[in-house]
This record gives sequence, structure tokens and C-alpha cells, in this order.
Amino acid sequence: MMKRILLGMVVLFMGSSFACAQGRQPKEDFVSSIMNQPGQEYPMVNSEGYARFRIMAPDAQSVIVSLGLGGSGGTVLSKDKDGVWTGTTEGPLDPGFHYYHLTIDGGVFNDPGTHNYFGSCRWESGIEIPAPDKDIYACRENIAHGNIQETLFYSPSQGKMQTAMVYLPPTYGKLENGKQERFPVLYLQHGWGENETSWGKQGHAGLIMDNLIADGKIQPFIIVMAYGLTNNVKFGTIGQFTAKEFETLLIDELIPFIDQHFLTKADKWNRAMAGLSMGGVETKLITLRRPEVFGYWGLLSGGQYAPEEIKDPTIVKYIFESCGSKENPDGINKSVEALKAAGYNAEGFISEGTAHEFLTWRRSLYLMAQKLFK
Amino acid sequence: MMKRILLGMVVLFMGSSFACAQGRQPKEDFVSSIMNQPGQEYPMVNSEGYARFRIMAPDAQSVIVSLGLGGSGGTVLSKDKDGVWTGTTEGPLDPGFHYYHLTIDGGVFNDPGTHNYFGSCRWESGIEIPAPDKDIYACRENIAHGNIQETLFYSPSQGKMQTAMVYLPPTYGKLENGKQERFPVLYLQHGWGENETSWGKQGHAGLIMDNLIADGKIQPFIIVMAYGLTNNVKFGTIGQFTAKEFETLLIDELIPFIDQHFLTKADKWNRAMAGLSMGGVETKLITLRRPEVFGYWGLLSGGQYAPEEIKDPTIVKYIFESCGSKENPDGINKSVEALKAAGYNAEGFISEGTAHEFLTWRRSLYLMAQKLFK
Repeated sequence: MMKRILLGMVVLFMGSSFACAQGRQPKEDFVSSIMNQPGQEYPMVNSEGYARFRIMAPDAQSVIVSLGLGGSGGTVLSKDKDGVWTGTTEGPLDPGFHYYHLTIDGGVFNDPGTHNYFGSCRWESGIEIPAPDKDIYACRENIAHGNIQETLFYSPSQGKMQTAMVYLPPTYGKLENGKQERFPVLYLQHGWGENETSWGKQGHAGLIMDNLIADGKIQPFIIVMAYGLTNNVKFGTIGQFTAKEFETLLIDELIPFIDQHFLTKADKWNRAMAGLSMGGVETKLITLRRPEVFGYWGLLSGGQYAPEEIKDPTIVKYIFESCGSKENPDGINKSVEALKAAGYNAEGFISEGTAHEFLTWRRSLYLMAQKLFK
Repeated sequence: MMKRILLGMVVLFMGSSFACAQGRQPKEDFVSSIMNQPGQEYPMVNSEGYARFRIMAPDAQSVIVSLGLGGSGGTVLSKDKDGVWTGTTEGPLDPGFHYYHLTIDGGVFNDPGTHNYFGSCRWESGIEIPAPDKDIYACRENIAHGNIQETLFYSPSQGKMQTAMVYLPPTYGKLENGKQERFPVLYLQHGWGENETSWGKQGHAGLIMDNLIADGKIQPFIIVMAYGLTNNVKFGTIGQFTAKEFETLLIDELIPFIDQHFLTKADKWNRAMAGLSMGGVETKLITLRRPEVFGYWGLLSGGQYAPEEIKDPTIVKYIFESCGSKENPDGINKSVEALKAAGYNAEGFISEGTAHEFLTWRRSLYLMAQKLFK
């Protein structure tokens, strides 16, 4: 399982999000990516999923974009007579969000055209290929929105202040008949190289929740997104990764803090844990060791549970496992079958046409959220 | 007044934050800037305020940092035999926060070593020279912290969703004897080229409030930080800037939204407006046109009020005006004198040793906050 996630992560870092590399001419209907900084025209995307880049660096010798499968492991830009570097991916990219960076004369920099997203242990450039189902994370004008707040807490085990991002639903805190409603909580973890901002920014977790609540598909709940202490883990050591430090921070420090400072329902059957990629590894390790804390478990491109690892179908109310169709669907399908056969309430989801990237996980959150706390 | 702010802004953009350019050797006690990305050693700062940069770009022809007053309007880095570009500012920088960027082979990019801060209408690199009074915005472990939340609202006049950042004090929303406390609100504006995130990130507005509240220096209040629609204003047209569009968004849309969705005291004597630089220009224009909305006014490196512009000392309870000692202290001092002579409750503050930059404004917020809503 570790090896599969590792593979998924390596594939992601190589930027191999090509749907296919056909070498034909892209349709000339390019528009600016929605992840661009204000007023920035480039990068652009077309209706087929091709991406086009434009970088000003008149005296540079070489500019390569880490997306696409060109000869140099990316899209090699060409300089025109005005000193502007441009280039288009050789084929369409998968729909959804992709991290990338530029290699300029051998140094790694961000594209000044885009906002920045924390991935690969640093702020990276990002581009969005419009997905057919992008409405699930659309920012709608005519609905009530919750908010995502930056929450500071002290971690004794880390010896320093930590930041968690907390999604609160639109009705949070309102006084009704002299009482304030309490909400269940999903602890939702990012992947390797990401941090507490990733699910909100590139994952659109808040917008997904707002839409689900507005459409009456779920009862409101809180999402807590903490930094999973994963950035120092090296690929060579992922097999030895225990998530013990994060377990201490999460169970002994963050959850008590959240239950003290927010209007939570503070018991196992109102608490879920899920994570993507290495956040799934953390989720599996911690839920198996501390089943008294979480009643709902989710692994998003983050491995699978086996019935013999859990041993007791009554300790978990619902298990969600997912991945992209370009990852390891067989592994998910077999695991879910085995869990069901052993009496677990488990569901699998294969995200069509996506790999180890955020569209897989946005879709996963959208579906999983509808099954939690029931 | 417009001209002075314009000058201040131009000076800022040229990165002229030198305390002095002595040309002597800096003390070799450099440590990583606290604005660096996790695990990044460079940029570094020493105890005298010198900054040192290190950029990997082995095949580049030229790397220039936009900070300091070297021969090329910045600090020109030199390449060593390993292809690493390094350089130190010619003299110490002013204490506090400085935006900067790199010019690599004629193109503008960010330093991959630092977090990004929205300024100059784009995400820029940032560096922090430790200030003698940095405790006022320290992130303390042993106090209660409020939070800053990203709040979405629809603006009919803009025809789209807008984001405001809202600081809520630690006690916000708590139920006491079946009631929830209501709070005054400060509407706090960023400068030209910045946005709704700037006061929280580079201004540390939330930490300043947490510290003031923890130390019993103020009664808690809410701060709303909205995007002031200033980024499309060109320097050539600043003299014609009316802030009319922002007035509509602020008065007709945002304030009603905030008063509906947050526990505010929704009247003039519990509402303040202040802003830095062009946010001060907005504050002056809007408070003078709409004195019925705001009872406390603050201009931070953003011009001055004249008694004959206000005409009535009873329409404003308190006026705060400030700037850095390297800006226009005379203008502030004369204005405050004239306001006082005309019967206004006005105070001025000159930030020692700082220019048109964020340490001036952090200090200003710290002082101004102690005088609001009294």
C-alpha cells in the first residue's frame, strides 16, 4: 500500500497529467486559467485541456514548465524575437488542478502569472483545467457561505504554535431559542508536501461544503484541516513512517483544543478522519490505533483497509476509499469488496479520467461528505 | 496630499528602505528571515539589518534583488563557481517588513526562499528585519487567540463574489447567561497594490489585536479587511481617484452584510474606518462624504484631514494620523495641531526610523486601536 502511494506521488511530481499526447494542433480557444493572479492573461487553457504558457525573461537561456511530457520532462518554451518565452503542452492535461513550476536557466521559480499553492513542501504555481463537474466546487452567488478561519493553537509536543484551518458552516454560532447548535467534525488531512491551506485553496473544501449544504444534501458539519507534519518525511523513509508525532498532536492537543473552542459534538460518532495520499496513510495508521476517537474513516488516494487489520465491524460506522481511474482502481474495488464481505459499511469511488491530483480528491470529498455522521 | 502619498508609494516601489549605505562590512551573525518558507535558509538578515540573498540559477546571466540601493536600483548578486548567486545589501534595511522580487535575465520572479505577500498588484517575496518593538505583533503561546476568517459576499455593484478577511476576537460568539456579546467594528484598508490579505499577513493585524486584548489594553472589537478596488488605479490618474466604487461596495454592500452576519454593534459610534497609504486616501474621501457611518477615522501614511474639510467637530469622536519618520512627519504634526486647535480629538504618531512600509502601520494600528470606541 505504501508503495502504491509512493508511486502515485512520484508520478504526480513528474507532472505526468497528460490525458494523451497526440501531437496534433490544439484548438485556438484559449482563455486565462482561473488560478491566475489578477490581471494576468497567462497561463491559458483551451477547451480540450491544453495549457499555454508565456514568460518574460529576455536574456534567459532556457525556460521549461514542469507540466506535460516533452523531451525534458516538461514543456520547453521557445523565445520569440521580443524575448518572450511561449509554449503549449504537447497534449491535453487531465481536468482539474495541477501544481507546476518553471526551471529558468537551471533554477526553480514560480510562474508570476498564477497564485501560489503549497505543494512539494513549497509554494508552487497552479493551473486549472475546467472539469465537466466543476459545479460541485463553484463559488455560487445566491447561497449562504460558511467561512474558513485560521486558528492558532499551542502544541506542547512540537513546542510551538501551530495553525489549523477550520471550516465553519453558514449557520455556525447562530443563536436559536437561546441555544447554539453543536456540529460533528471531520478532520481532513492534506498530502505529502502540502499543508493546512491545501484542502481549502486548491481543494475548494469550503465551497464544496457550502454547495452540499445549500442543496440540502448534507447536514452541516465542521472541517478541521491541520498541518500533518509530513513535509520532513523523505521518500526513502516512507516505509518507516508511523505518524506517531502527528497522532500526539492530533489526539492529545488539537482535538481537545477544537472541542474546547468550537461548538462541536465531541464524541466518536460525531468525529471523522480522512486524508488524501500521505494524509490517507496518516488516517489509516491513526484510526486503526485509536478507533475510540473516530467513527468514520476515509482514504483518498491513500491506500486501503483490510478487514483483518480492523478486526471488528462495530468500531467504524463507515469507510470511504477512493482514487483516480489512472491510479489503482483495482486495489480500491477489491478492498471495498473484502470489507463489505466482512460486514463493514464500506464504499469505494473511482474518479473517472483523473490521476493522483486534486480533482480526484474534490470529487471524493463531495461524495464522502454525504455519507458521514448518519 | 495626493502628491505626498504618491511619492511615498513610488519610494516604496523602488525598494529604498536603506537606513544608510555605509559600504562597510556587515556583522557575520546572519539568521534566516522569519518570512521564509519552511526549511529555507535564505534570505538571511543580520543584527544590523543587512539582508543576504542566495539564488540557484546556474545558467542565468544576471540576478538582481529589488531591495537596497545598489548600482542597478537593487542588490546585484554574483555567481560563484557552483552556479549559485549570492549578495548582501550595501547597508542595513529599515526594521520591519519589505516586499521585494528578483530580476532574472530581465524577467521578474519571486525568491523561492520566502512566503508570498500581495503587494504591487501581485504576490511578492517578503523579508523581515527584526524590529526593537517586535513584541507588539509576536505570536504568543500563553494567550487566547482570535482568528481571521475568509468571508465571501456577493457585491451587486461589482457583479461578483468578493472576499473580506474578518478578525474576530477570542471571546467572539461565546454564550454568556444566554446572550452573545456584540462588538464594535474597524474597517481597515490596505494600500495600493495590496489586497484584503495584506493587513493580516504582512501587517499582523490579528496578532496585534490578540496581544492588546490579552494585555487588557483594549476592549475586544472586530476588524474587517476588504479589497479596496485600488489595483486598477494608475499613478497618472491618482489625482482623479474618487473611491466612489469602493464607497458603494463598502457602505451599501459590505457593511450591511457584516452587520447581518456578525455580532456587531451596528451604529456610527461603534464603527471606525482607517487605512494605510491609498487606503488612507479612501478613508478620508469616504469618511468626509459619509460621516454618518463612521465615528472614528484613521489615516496611516495616507494624508491628513484639515478642519475646514470636516467643518463640524461633533461628527467625529477621534482622528488618528500617522506616518514614518522618513515620510512627512511635519505634515502630520501640523495637521494634528490644526485639528486640535479647531476642537477635534485628534492624535498624531510618527514611527521612528521607518518609511512608507508595514512597520509604520503595525505600530500605528497598535496605538490607534487603544483609542477607538471610547
